[in-house]
Amino acid sequence: MPFDEEIVCGSYAVSEQEIIEFGTQWDPQYFHVDPEAAAHSTFGGVIASGLHTTSIFQRLAVQAIYTRYDVIAGREIRSLRFLRPVRGGDVLTASVLLHSVEPARRGRCLVTIMGTLRNQEGVPVLTLEVDSLVRSQTLSDG
Amino acid sequence: MPFDEEIVCGSYAVSEQEIIEFGTQWDPQYFHVDPEAAAHSTFGGVIASGLHTTSIFQRLAVQAIYTRYDVIAGREIRSLRFLRPVRGGDVLTASVLLHSVEPARRGRCLVTIMGTLRNQEGVPVLTLEVDSLVRSQTLSDG
Repeated sequence: MPFDEEIVCGSYAVSEQEIIEFGTQWDPQYFHVDPEAAAHSTFGGVIASGLHTTSIFQRLAVQAIYTRYDVIAGREIRSLRFLRPVRGGDVLTASVLLHSVEPARRGRCLVTIMGTLRNQEGVPVLTLEVDSLVRSQTLSDG
Repeated sequence: MPFDEEIVCGSYAVSEQEIIEFGTQWDPQYFHVDPEAAAHSTFGGVIASGLHTTSIFQRLAVQAIYTRYDVIAGREIRSLRFLRPVRGGDVLTASVLLHSVEPARRGRCLVTIMGTLRNQEGVPVLTLEVDSLVRSQTLSDG
């Protein structure tokens, strides 16, 4: 994965039904799960949980990129910003920028990526910085 | 919610089946979804996606605390650390510490909480800092 090159990871259409299902299970605040109450909120309707939006980003990033590398585990998300509401019908596109690779112990690297999820108007709805441990030498190299 | 007082939010038992289901939908890396391949990984078995663990924290915090306040929306998670692997059979307990309340525009406050999720041995598996916008004056106050 080259530096300074944003990799587009594909798109995901989110429905209001899925927003309500995710919210009901993991983030049951009224503005994620109750269309009638949410209609009277600041947002005028149900919006996706930030964890749902983050999960959509993760799914797209894993499918496009992570499975090509020998990722050991995520370590930290250093800044996860919820910039715009996500609603049913939105089509979200993830992109990833490789920010840094630092050598770590035992043939590992600490890899930092910066990710963005944009809606169908190209407006960022979420940004995040993720540190992961990645094996720098695969078994087949040894 | 008082300052400097950790509020315990309840517990959640996570199964390996749920770990695999969450991973399959949102974070399909082999160490979240494939018990056989994960057995040969650094962790020796399937571990929960960090987003799954974060979702468990959120569910417990919402049920115990958030619904008592007029939360408008989450704005940012500033540091989300995955400290220990979470496995099927773990029982996770969330706690929340109110860190700061800053006045914001239009009768709102920016509230920062620090959250911790511990396993059945009392060991932190996840910590996070969350900024949320909360209405400081409810309609009934007006």
